[in-house]
Amino acid sequence: MEPIIVKYVEKPELNKPVLIEGLPGVGNVGKISAEYLKDKLNAKLFVEIYSKYLPPQVLMRPDGTLYLVKNELYYYKNPKGRDLIILVGDYQGMSSEGQYELSYKVLEIVKEFGTDMIFTLGGYGTGQLVEVPRVFGAATNLELVENMKKYSVYFSPSDPAGGIVGAAGLLLGLGSVVFGMQGVCLMGETSGYFSDPKSSFEILKIIKQYFNLDIDLSEIELRSKEITEITTQLKEEQKNEERKEDLGYIG
Amino acid sequence: MEPIIVKYVEKPELNKPVLIEGLPGVGNVGKISAEYLKDKLNAKLFVEIYSKYLPPQVLMRPDGTLYLVKNELYYYKNPKGRDLIILVGDYQGMSSEGQYELSYKVLEIVKEFGTDMIFTLGGYGTGQLVEVPRVFGAATNLELVENMKKYSVYFSPSDPAGGIVGAAGLLLGLGSVVFGMQGVCLMGETSGYFSDPKSSFEILKIIKQYFNLDIDLSEIELRSKEITEITTQLKEEQKNEERKEDLGYIG
Amino acid sequence: MEPIIVKYVEKPELNKPVLIEGLPGVGNVGKISAEYLKDKLNAKLFVEIYSKYLPPQVLMRPDGTLYLVKNELYYYKNPKGRDLIILVGDYQGMSSEGQYELSYKVLEIVKEFGTDMIFTLGGYGTGQLVEVPRVFGAATNLELVENMKKYSVYFSPSDPAGGIVGAAGLLLGLGSVVFGMQGVCLMGETSGYFSDPKSSFEILKIIKQYFNLDIDLSEIELRSKEITEITTQLKEEQKNEERKEDLGYIG
Amino acid sequence: MEPIIVKYVEKPELNKPVLIEGLPGVGNVGKISAEYLKDKLNAKLFVEIYSKYLPPQVLMRPDGTLYLVKNELYYYKNPKGRDLIILVGDYQGMSSEGQYELSYKVLEIVKEFGTDMIFTLGGYGTGQLVEVPRVFGAATNLELVENMKKYSVYFSPSDPAGGIVGAAGLLLGLGSVVFGMQGVCLMGETSGYFSDPKSSFEILKIIKQYFNLDIDLSEIELRSKEITEITTQLKEEQKNEERKEDLGYIG
Repeated sequence: MEPIIVKYVEKPELNKPVLIEGLPGVGNVGKISAEYLKDKLNAKLFVEIYSKYLPPQVLMRPDGTLYLVKNELYYYKNPKGRDLIILVGDYQGMSSEGQYELSYKVLEIVKEFGTDMIFTLGGYGTGQLVEVPRVFGAATNLELVENMKKYSVYFSPSDPAGGIVGAAGLLLGLGSVVFGMQGVCLMGETSGYFSDPKSSFEILKIIKQYFNLDIDLSEIELRSKEITEITTQLKEEQKNEERKEDLGYIG
Repeated sequence: MEPIIVKYVEKPELNKPVLIEGLPGVGNVGKISAEYLKDKLNAKLFVEIYSKYLPPQVLMRPDGTLYLVKNELYYYKNPKGRDLIILVGDYQGMSSEGQYELSYKVLEIVKEFGTDMIFTLGGYGTGQLVEVPRVFGAATNLELVENMKKYSVYFSPSDPAGGIVGAAGLLLGLGSVVFGMQGVCLMGETSGYFSDPKSSFEILKIIKQYFNLDIDLSEIELRSKEITEITTQLKEEQKNEERKEDLGYIG
Repeated sequence: MEPIIVKYVEKPELNKPVLIEGLPGVGNVGKISAEYLKDKLNAKLFVEIYSKYLPPQVLMRPDGTLYLVKNELYYYKNPKGRDLIILVGDYQGMSSEGQYELSYKVLEIVKEFGTDMIFTLGGYGTGQLVEVPRVFGAATNLELVENMKKYSVYFSPSDPAGGIVGAAGLLLGLGSVVFGMQGVCLMGETSGYFSDPKSSFEILKIIKQYFNLDIDLSEIELRSKEITEITTQLKEEQKNEERKEDLGYIG
Repeated sequence: MEPIIVKYVEKPELNKPVLIEGLPGVGNVGKISAEYLKDKLNAKLFVEIYSKYLPPQVLMRPDGTLYLVKNELYYYKNPKGRDLIILVGDYQGMSSEGQYELSYKVLEIVKEFGTDMIFTLGGYGTGQLVEVPRVFGAATNLELVENMKKYSVYFSPSDPAGGIVGAAGLLLGLGSVVFGMQGVCLMGETSGYFSDPKSSFEILKIIKQYFNLDIDLSEIELRSKEITEITTQLKEEQKNEERKEDLGYIG
């Protein structure tokens, strides 16, 4: 079989579309962000990607039907600027080789449609509950670093220390080396212990502003607040327990 | 070497044959079912499949001879309806890639013989001893979901939660995406702790009825009853021990 | 690079040579046997096999020089019968795929020289110290099973239960399925805890007799006796300790 | 995608250049040595190597920009003798296959520029803090062994016992078998517990002398002395604790 099977649902004309990636990863921050974007923008599915580099697995829909795990590309015709291509999916590639091959294939496809810029979205796992998650950035060139700072993206000289692993990094790395594209990775701070819409909310505010999108963020804001409540509660319980322990030592 | 070596023993003319798969897996439910079917229908071997995606291993026959691990296709000319192709084997593919490649190859082969429908058989591991195993289903389309419900196949909006991993899922996933086939996966409930003919018996009753087969199920019914006896005994021992423990608390 | 690099040192004319394999494995029984055979027969190196399926490693000679890990083929022109090709090496293939590809390549090579019969040598690990190791057999066909019984090869209806994994099995499996060869695997009983020349000695006696070889076994017999002494000592120490423990319970 | 992507920054004319390799490994001894050499010789980057055999990862620069993990070749035109090609990189290949493919590709590239000799640099992990690290050697031929002994390289009949794993071994192994090159591996003794410039210093002294290089080693000497101080302190602390424990037994 072909290692990667690309099925075109449609071949739209697009205006220098920017690729926005959000696949499963730390805190599912990227996936939640990209899927929210796609849903709220009512973006259209135009490419399905199946591959032996994904797990040998089908997933269930609630109605009893099944579908093969895949990655998908959606497009959004942006009346106020450059169009968007949004990459979402059930899984990332399972091996180093699979990661490279899948990222390369996506870049080949979007190149055809005129893409020369990429935004990859992900989580930056800190292992700690965060009050207001910062959005860390990394870009393919200095100009873009400076530009993104205007949107409150935080560039640290030492983070993320281990670099960026997976599609969020590879699309930018291969994109710049092989396809002459530029781009930026936005990483929302997250504990990494659970799916974190709060971190995604911070990323989406930047995306909305940067691309001047007409998009309603109230739903993700609500989910974000729920996370705040839960984590506030968790923190108080922690404090109470610590206090009890302290008393124990005194009494 | 060719990654997959296909040896034709025979090239029969078949009447829109339905592929029925039963390879090793949870509780060996699929394997037991498909091999019982093949034996009782006196199905004929026509394809042997060897591959570097299977383990590097030969297996022993009691007479001291050995054979390379393989998958096999048998055919059954059904006087009362569509013919059957039955897929059995010693192992499934060892890696993601191997799973995809082997499933794809089987689909290519059966396509040649006119197959456009697939039944995959497997176990659904619950981790608990079951009195009467239900048969869960998952299908490539809603029409088939509705149709299978008539045969007491149980479709749950949330099971199996993790989807279906391996050949039982892939044959349906790749079959529908690449080869335009439809199909259903039948999963017999099983503890998953041992080879479970009881679960296979429930699946075989459905297969017999659906395909209107002239097949004797008395032997698998007997093996099924033996399992019932063993598990009943196990459960009573469990209860007795729990009672003892309860008395211990009271006494 | 080519996945497997074959370097011919020489292309000898051979008389229907039988392939004898002895690569590293359980108790190194096969390796010890084949290397002893090659050394005592003064067999000539004619093929070197390098491959990315072997570990990425060089090994040291005592003089400070290094060499890339490899498999090697030696030939022996047998004045009393069929010639021999002996396969030895530093490692077996590292993955399923590597095992298949390397075995296939060896079969392709020896086929060129007229081979239609294979002897593979290995250990059968029992986890227990053995007084006189039996030599278990498995063959590609019944005739050969019967023939080998005359040489005191032991065929069990249930051993080895897990079949034969690795080159010793694959050469026979692929050899018979793809290349129309026949052959037998000789497995010397061994604890599997250490390199076991005692088990190799039993195999070599059969090989010597079967091929009517003019070969001196006194050296391996000596090494075999040393193993006997060590294991006898170990067993007595075990007994003494058990006796002490027994006394402990009584006293 | 091509498994290995080679980007030429420049195609210099070189005078029978010797390849010097220093990739990450035990104690990072090779990497530290080769990078120091490249920096102090002001060697010029001429080849970038990207590959799916490297991790799917980008790394960060302090200015917020990112780059795809890679291997690099630098050249140095040596006024006093043969030119040098220096191989450095972020990672070695991730799998056996990747190791072989990447080493093979590097050899193909340097062959083009006239290379017939290779020096690979690495650490020899002993698990113990060393006062003055020896430099162990292994070479492709006896002449080179004898030659290197003049430069205080230590050849042991039994070290390294496990051979040499990874690029440092493979470049020499494949280089001699496939490309007719000769070469030597220099392994600086190191505990292996931390990055060890002290071990690199010993290697660099040999390289400087052998190639008659005009290179300032004062900086690495300083870093080497820092390591000496730290390890001396560690050893004294160990001794003191052992003394305390001894007193504890007596008191």
